[in-house]
Amino acid sequence: MHLKTQEILNIITQAAHSSAEIIIENFNTQSKIKDKGSHKDIVTETDVASQKNIKSFITAELEKIGVEQDDIGFAEEESADHSVAEHTFIVDPIDGTSNFAAGIPYSCISIGYAYKQKVLVGLVYNPFSKTLYTGVTNEGAHMQIGDNQTVTLQVNPKEINSWMVGVHFNGIEVYRDQFKSYLELYPHVRGLRTFGSLTLEICAVADTSLDAVYNRGCYFWDLAAASVILREAGAELYNYQGEILEFDWQDTQSRYEVVACHPKNKDKAISFLQ
Amino acid sequence: MHLKTQEILNIITQAAHSSAEIIIENFNTQSKIKDKGSHKDIVTETDVASQKNIKSFITAELEKIGVEQDDIGFAEEESADHSVAEHTFIVDPIDGTSNFAAGIPYSCISIGYAYKQKVLVGLVYNPFSKTLYTGVTNEGAHMQIGDNQTVTLQVNPKEINSWMVGVHFNGIEVYRDQFKSYLELYPHVRGLRTFGSLTLEICAVADTSLDAVYNRGCYFWDLAAASVILREAGAELYNYQGEILEFDWQDTQSRYEVVACHPKNKDKAISFLQ
Repeated sequence: MHLKTQEILNIITQAAHSSAEIIIENFNTQSKIKDKGSHKDIVTETDVASQKNIKSFITAELEKIGVEQDDIGFAEEESADHSVAEHTFIVDPIDGTSNFAAGIPYSCISIGYAYKQKVLVGLVYNPFSKTLYTGVTNEGAHMQIGDNQTVTLQVNPKEINSWMVGVHFNGIEVYRDQFKSYLELYPHVRGLRTFGSLTLEICAVADTSLDAVYNRGCYFWDLAAASVILREAGAELYNYQGEILEFDWQDTQSRYEVVACHPKNKDKAISFLQ
Repeated sequence: MHLKTQEILNIITQAAHSSAEIIIENFNTQSKIKDKGSHKDIVTETDVASQKNIKSFITAELEKIGVEQDDIGFAEEESADHSVAEHTFIVDPIDGTSNFAAGIPYSCISIGYAYKQKVLVGLVYNPFSKTLYTGVTNEGAHMQIGDNQTVTLQVNPKEINSWMVGVHFNGIEVYRDQFKSYLELYPHVRGLRTFGSLTLEICAVADTSLDAVYNRGCYFWDLAAASVILREAGAELYNYQGEILEFDWQDTQSRYEVVACHPKNKDKAISFLQ
């Protein structure tokens, strides 16, 4: 059963706004934290509540319009139990959990929609700044802040000496190489930033406030929604070999290395990698 | 002539709100950029407009209450012509200029007030998130977001494995040593962040969303206002030898190295420095 992308976008927008309320209510309230194997990788009760809320909202809305339960799949960050179906939703209930837990108002809800294993719609919402990014394949990428007018996103390449670059440090297996890469990159660019939400930083490439983003330890749910927004804005997600990133639908828990940038900046961007 | 700190706070709050309008109006409008000797160090027309506005506002208000022009001094980021007087205002018209120029909504106005070379009042305002930080010596530090209730700031020490740490890279003379320090620090803490406004990051230590901040290339106007807010919240600015930072009133253009943290975390924090 084929669904209109606009219909999907409406449903996931409502789901995101509903989870945004949960996130805002629980901000700075000492939401219970568990580590996921390291003091650097945590989950809060609020992540789980946001995720449950999104799943039940989307499932109910799809059933209302006649989609069978067996045709609905979910790949969610805080769930080991992924299912791929005709309609698959890729959900990060809070991207930037460490920020959220620390009281830093920079994190987002990310919801991607794939039809027959092709990601067609992406939505990313920062509930603190009320910034909504959306992308629909072949229909463009847009940004809306609060009640302001919606703007169409369009990335153009820039000279490297004015680049603002989002960098990540992805745990004790890879951080030494990452520091080396960023050390090489640093003198050439205007500035390095580490904001703490890869998904929002990819969207920042789409809205032209960042020019490149590097990450060596990310997942489907960090990337799916943002990938549509980025591509529709004229930029792209690459792997560390400089190829356009393909998602591994056989293993939705795969770990990725990515560079986000304009195609014309790609060769330069990957030349700094270790 | 002695002025009440509350009176000063009212004047600089009005000055900051007035410059906030200039900053918001000029955000994402291609405000003209000049470099200050490097592609990493820039100034925009909006910095200059914000600074002029603050100076003329404060001067007019002080004259209204009978302060003589000769008794008013200014140390402003975008002015080579500093003057120290009985009443000195230390002004950064936009801290986080690279963010502002790139369209990243994370920067602030910083205004400190010193009476007879002692900084007594500090105000930091982020016009994007509408977050106002204030500190008055012996009267505490406060934060207000939009029209929300004002909260009193109080820092408590934390275990290093939950630290969120603000790190800076301060130009080609020092960045290699900085990378080394952060490489040593990284495995011990929850996360590193580089938001791009030292002043706001020091305030984030005061509001407990960051636990330490490192910078090796900052100035009086980055620090003066935030130093009062931080100290009144129970934390402190140290130099890289671990001594409480003293401002050099003989040379208001001096460059500083600072670590911002709770006193009980200081020895740990400076142990990673190269």
